[in-house]
Amino acid sequence: MDVAARAGALRTAFAGAGCEALLVTSLTNVRWLTGFTGSAARVVVLPDELVLVTDGRYGDQAAVELAAAGVEGEVRIGRSLAAQQDLLIEVVGPVRQLGLEAEHVSWSAQRIYTGAFAGAELVPTTGLVEGQRLLKDPGEIARIEMACDIASAALDATLPLLATEPAETSFALALDTEMRRRGAQGPSFETIVAAGPNAGFPHHRPDDRRIRDGDLLVLDFGALVDGYHSDMTRTVAVGDLSTERAELLALVTEAQALGVAAVGPDRAARDVDAACRRHITAAGWGDEFTHGTGHGVGLLIHEAPWVNATSTDRIVAGVVVTVEPGVYRGSLGGARVEDTVLVTTSGCRPLTKTPKDLACLPSAPTTSRTG
Amino acid sequence: MDVAARAGALRTAFAGAGCEALLVTSLTNVRWLTGFTGSAARVVVLPDELVLVTDGRYGDQAAVELAAAGVEGEVRIGRSLAAQQDLLIEVVGPVRQLGLEAEHVSWSAQRIYTGAFAGAELVPTTGLVEGQRLLKDPGEIARIEMACDIASAALDATLPLLATEPAETSFALALDTEMRRRGAQGPSFETIVAAGPNAGFPHHRPDDRRIRDGDLLVLDFGALVDGYHSDMTRTVAVGDLSTERAELLALVTEAQALGVAAVGPDRAARDVDAACRRHITAAGWGDEFTHGTGHGVGLLIHEAPWVNATSTDRIVAGVVVTVEPGVYRGSLGGARVEDTVLVTTSGCRPLTKTPKDLACLPSAPTTSRTG
Repeated sequence: MDVAARAGALRTAFAGAGCEALLVTSLTNVRWLTGFTGSAARVVVLPDELVLVTDGRYGDQAAVELAAAGVEGEVRIGRSLAAQQDLLIEVVGPVRQLGLEAEHVSWSAQRIYTGAFAGAELVPTTGLVEGQRLLKDPGEIARIEMACDIASAALDATLPLLATEPAETSFALALDTEMRRRGAQGPSFETIVAAGPNAGFPHHRPDDRRIRDGDLLVLDFGALVDGYHSDMTRTVAVGDLSTERAELLALVTEAQALGVAAVGPDRAARDVDAACRRHITAAGWGDEFTHGTGHGVGLLIHEAPWVNATSTDRIVAGVVVTVEPGVYRGSLGGARVEDTVLVTTSGCRPLTKTPKDLACLPSAPTTSRTG
Repeated sequence: MDVAARAGALRTAFAGAGCEALLVTSLTNVRWLTGFTGSAARVVVLPDELVLVTDGRYGDQAAVELAAAGVEGEVRIGRSLAAQQDLLIEVVGPVRQLGLEAEHVSWSAQRIYTGAFAGAELVPTTGLVEGQRLLKDPGEIARIEMACDIASAALDATLPLLATEPAETSFALALDTEMRRRGAQGPSFETIVAAGPNAGFPHHRPDDRRIRDGDLLVLDFGALVDGYHSDMTRTVAVGDLSTERAELLALVTEAQALGVAAVGPDRAARDVDAACRRHITAAGWGDEFTHGTGHGVGLLIHEAPWVNATSTDRIVAGVVVTVEPGVYRGSLGGARVEDTVLVTTSGCRPLTKTPKDLACLPSAPTTSRTG
C-alpha cells in the first residue's frame, strides 16, 4: 500500500471542492491517509503539510504508525479535548476555506468549529476521501483477499461441527475462533448464524437454537485482516430439505450468479441489483428480497459503491463489492448467497472462493459437498 | 429493565429543552429507548407516540423487539433512504420545534433535515437521552455485573496458559473465546494484551510477541452481555519482576485503590482522577500517567460520566464508572489497574471481582495468586 501518496491525491480533490485545507474527522479516513489505527485522532491536511492531533494515549503509537507507513506528518498531542482544540486552532491558523467532512462531523462539532475557527469559512464536503478509497490498490486487494481466504478456510474447518447439531451460538464461536487462529484480528462484523425459522430474518443474531436436519442455514461472516474486511454468505442445506426450501435456495443461488455475471467495469451499480432482482421477482418472491444487492468492502465492511435499486453509484475496475441477494419467507426460513468480488477491466474476479453448493448431513460424522 | 417507561422521562427532558418532539439518531439511544438492536433505525418521539423508521432488513425484527420490551411504538419500513425520508417527513408532520441529537446527527444530515422538515425549527439538543442513560436500573446493573463476572471467570480459565509462554494474540484469543463460552456475545472491545515493552503503550494491539518471565503483562478486556459492557484491567507480574517493574505495579495498584476509595455519591468526577493522580505524581511519574482515570460503562464501553482532570461531570448513586490509572515507561513496560464500580448511596460497590495481585510463573504448570 502506498499510504504516503494518498494525501497528494486528496489535496487535488479538496482544492477542486474549493478548500485550502481539509479537516479529516472520520477515523477510517484518518487510517487510510496516515496508517494510524487508534480510536481518537483528527488530521488537518494542508497544501504542504499533514498534522495529526490525538490524545495522550496515542502519541507514541501515532508516531510509530505514520513512520511505518512512510507518511510525512507531524503528530501533536493534546491531553484534553480543550488542549486538542487549541492545537487545531493553531494548525488551521491562516486557512481561509476549511473543508469539513460533512458526513463525519456532527452538527455539534460543526457549531463548535464555527466558533473556534472564526477566521475560516467552513465548507461542507462529501466523500472526498471516500472517493479516493473507492479504488483499492494492490496492497489493499491482497489484504481483502487474505481476509476472504481466511474466512473460507475457517468455514471448511467448522462445517464438520454440523454433525453435532450445534447451537447457532456455538457454531458462530467456532467460526470466529477458526478465523482468528488463521490470523484474522477478528470477525469483520458480528457473525450471522441463522438456522430454520431464524433464517427468515436477514440479520438474525445467533441464539441457542440447535441447527437441525431440514434447516436452511444462513452463514454471513467475514474476517478482518490489517483493518480490511471480507464478507461472504453461504446458505447450507442441512440434511434433507423440503422441496420448497430446496427451490428457494436454488433460486437465490441462480440470482446471485446472475448478479456476479452483471458485475463489470464502468456500469451502473443498480444494474447489478436489477440482474438479481429480476430473477427473484419473476419467480414471485420480489417482495421477500427485502434489501439491496450489495455494497463496497474495504476498511469498512459497508462502504461505497452501493449496489441497490435506487443507487446512482457506478462500479469501475479496482472497486471491491459484494453481491448478496436473499429471500426471506418467515417460518419457512430464508436464503442468502454472497461473494466479495473485485471489479476488473474485463468483468470481475471473485475473491470469495468457497463453493456455493454446501450440503451436510447433521447425523453423519463428516461433511460433504454435493455438486 | 423497564424499557417502556423510558420514553416518558425523555418527553419531560425534551420539553424542557424547548422541543415538541425529538428525532433520535444514535443507535445506542434507539436501543435504550425501544429495545431495537439492529444497525439502522431512527426514532421520532412525539408527545403521545413513538415511531421507529427502519429498512427492509429490520422490519420484522424491530416489531418483535419492541413488543418484547413492552414498548408501544409503531414500526415503519422504508426500503430506500428516500422512502425512509418520506416516512420521517410524514411522522414529523406538524411538529414546530423538532429536537435533533446534535452530537449524533452529522452536519450533512442536519442540512438535509433542514430542507426536508421545512415547517419545523430544528433545535440542537445535547445529551437528552444520555442524561437518562446515566443512571442504570436494576436490569442494566445485573447485565453489567454478569459481564464483569464472565470476564473474571474467563481470566481465571485463561491464566494457566501463561505457563506455555503464549504469544499475545493467542492469549487474547483464548480470553475472548472463554468469555463467549460463558455466554458473552463477544468481547466488549478489542482485547488488549500487552507484555514487556508493549505494555509501555496504553492501547497496544496484541501481536506475536511471546509473554515471558519478567514481563509486566497488561490485560484490558471485557465482556458484552445483552448489549451491556464490562471493563477490567489487570497487570500480571509474570515470573520474577525487576525491582523497578515491581515498584511500578505496586504504585499503580495503590493509586487505583485510592481512586476507588474516592468514588461515592454526589461528588465531582475529577476528584476521583485527582485521588489517583496525586499519588502517582508524588512518586514522580505524573507525566507518564497519560490518560484520564475512567469513564462510564453501559450500552457503550465509553460513556458519561467522564473521570478525568478537566471533567465537569458529577458522579451520583446509580452510575457505573471505571477507575483505571496507568503509568507507561516505554521499554520498561507499563502498568494499569482497572475496576468497573457501581456508585451507591454510601460509596461504591466494585462489580469487578478479580483480585489485583495476580502473579504467575511462566515455567510452572499452574498459576497461583500470591497475596
